[in-house]
Amino acid sequence: MRERLSSDTYIDGILAGDRVVLSRAITVIESRLAEDKQLAQAILNGILPHSGNSLRIGITGIPGVGKSTFIEALGMYLTGINKKVAVLAVDPTSSKSAGSILGDKTRMEELVKSPIAFIRPSATGLSLGGVARNTREAMLLCEAAGYEVILIETVGVGQSEIIVKGMTDFFLLLALPRAGDELQGIKKGIVEMANAVVVNKADGLFAEEAAQAVATFQNALHLAPGDPSGTLVQVLACSALENKGIREVWEVVQDYFKNTVANGFFTQNRAAQQVDWMHELIRQNLNDLFYQNKEVRKLLPNVEAKVGEGKMLPAEAAQILLNMLFKI
Amino acid sequence: MRERLSSDTYIDGILAGDRVVLSRAITVIESRLAEDKQLAQAILNGILPHSGNSLRIGITGIPGVGKSTFIEALGMYLTGINKKVAVLAVDPTSSKSAGSILGDKTRMEELVKSPIAFIRPSATGLSLGGVARNTREAMLLCEAAGYEVILIETVGVGQSEIIVKGMTDFFLLLALPRAGDELQGIKKGIVEMANAVVVNKADGLFAEEAAQAVATFQNALHLAPGDPSGTLVQVLACSALENKGIREVWEVVQDYFKNTVANGFFTQNRAAQQVDWMHELIRQNLNDLFYQNKEVRKLLPNVEAKVGEGKMLPAEAAQILLNMLFKI
Repeated sequence: MRERLSSDTYIDGILAGDRVVLSRAITVIESRLAEDKQLAQAILNGILPHSGNSLRIGITGIPGVGKSTFIEALGMYLTGINKKVAVLAVDPTSSKSAGSILGDKTRMEELVKSPIAFIRPSATGLSLGGVARNTREAMLLCEAAGYEVILIETVGVGQSEIIVKGMTDFFLLLALPRAGDELQGIKKGIVEMANAVVVNKADGLFAEEAAQAVATFQNALHLAPGDPSGTLVQVLACSALENKGIREVWEVVQDYFKNTVANGFFTQNRAAQQVDWMHELIRQNLNDLFYQNKEVRKLLPNVEAKVGEGKMLPAEAAQILLNMLFKI
Repeated sequence: MRERLSSDTYIDGILAGDRVVLSRAITVIESRLAEDKQLAQAILNGILPHSGNSLRIGITGIPGVGKSTFIEALGMYLTGINKKVAVLAVDPTSSKSAGSILGDKTRMEELVKSPIAFIRPSATGLSLGGVARNTREAMLLCEAAGYEVILIETVGVGQSEIIVKGMTDFFLLLALPRAGDELQGIKKGIVEMANAVVVNKADGLFAEEAAQAVATFQNALHLAPGDPSGTLVQVLACSALENKGIREVWEVVQDYFKNTVANGFFTQNRAAQQVDWMHELIRQNLNDLFYQNKEVRKLLPNVEAKVGEGKMLPAEAAQILLNMLFKI
């Protein structure tokens, strides 16, 4: 294990915008070692007053839609207008799959060279809850380090989108031209979460199809329930490969922020997200306290066997195990 | 409140197949009164050795597919071959909606008259977890009362299907002719859970369309991942209204049971369901123990407000509240 610094050293380094320290602090946060947990909490407490000042944008889309290319194009546009950009990823499957999601930093070859960009591959091998916790905390650290836009990439598996929606201000769905296929491939609930649908690969032979896809999405969204933000879901086309339409995407994002800050939704939404996250942490902690309890662990295999064989009612078994935790 | 009987009186009545006692026992199980909880547990413990001997069948489909008509037709077919049939419902939305799901017992006008059928409208006004618990326990009571087939109706909202899949042996999806529309209306995950897809309303003008729908579903399912039961998903057409194809549906169900009992999946699946249910009860109980704790309840509004205003980290707040529960 690499040597740890003092919490103050991490905090000072992060606040000074030192990317190496930021990166090492995220490693502390992702660590599952008991001795790192206290350090992680100290770092988080130290940076908390300096967090929150970014636009948090979730980006999703089915594999093949060009998420990395799009994120690089958007990131380059933003660094070009002098915005500090951090890219994070939520991918609960990355430990198993070939890791299409930021698995290889070098896929964003241009953006990675920018002195005002920070790219962090996804944490792997943890539960979805763990991944969510790490990503959320990494986001706070990036904000304290002065990153003004946080792009959070996610794969289109449903649950991770819900998690990213719960930690971002704006949710962007990337889609392919050929809207017929596309609408079937994207889960309906995900389309409904989007603040904007961006049809990528609107280049060459696909330009016309992309325009059709935009119209199809516009019609489909026309029928969808209104967004609680009080804004309309925008649909537009771009070509990340040819760098076309990226500025327009950013304008849509900016309009959204302007409108939701003005109508109060932005603040309300962040407050509600914080409270939801507290309840999610309570759920996770209760679960951990229970399943990591020594006596529960000792008893569990036996109780599970009895329940499986029908020799004990699940309710009775649950009660016996819960008594282990709450007995005095 | 109606007078309660002794637990032995409930148990004896259920085992004797008394439908009035069975119905009153289910009311005890659904009760949220503290004094009823102990009684409910005593009844469950008493009937447990007599439960498990039924075929548990989940039935779902979008509104308008003819679920009630189908369940009545299948129920009448089964009582006609002298099988005792119980009909239950899982509907977490029934307290809000107009209650399309068994809301009105009288919709199954014929079946309700049969001396060997038992129909129980859905419990309302509870959480999804509560509805699931009640339905599962009502099912055990029906089994102890000698019902050989339990039909559990559910609405097509996704989460209730997962719950019903987790408590049944066989999951039947009802569909409409016109497969194009239909495939879009049914959530994809639900089609994947089905052991059989039955295209209803294959009568009159729709007979031909129903045949096409069967072919479309067969093609779609051909590409779906194989069922862990080692059986093929069957697709067939019926007309519940004209009582056509109902016997064939039952043959498919029987074949499934024969095959899964023979290959061991039936027993494995029931054992796994029991263990899953134990863990779900643990989750629910941990949640209840926490949120019903007096000190947690006193502190919660204040802590939520601080978190919402960004004055306290969610992790810190979670810890403060958890300390209330676990302090000695």
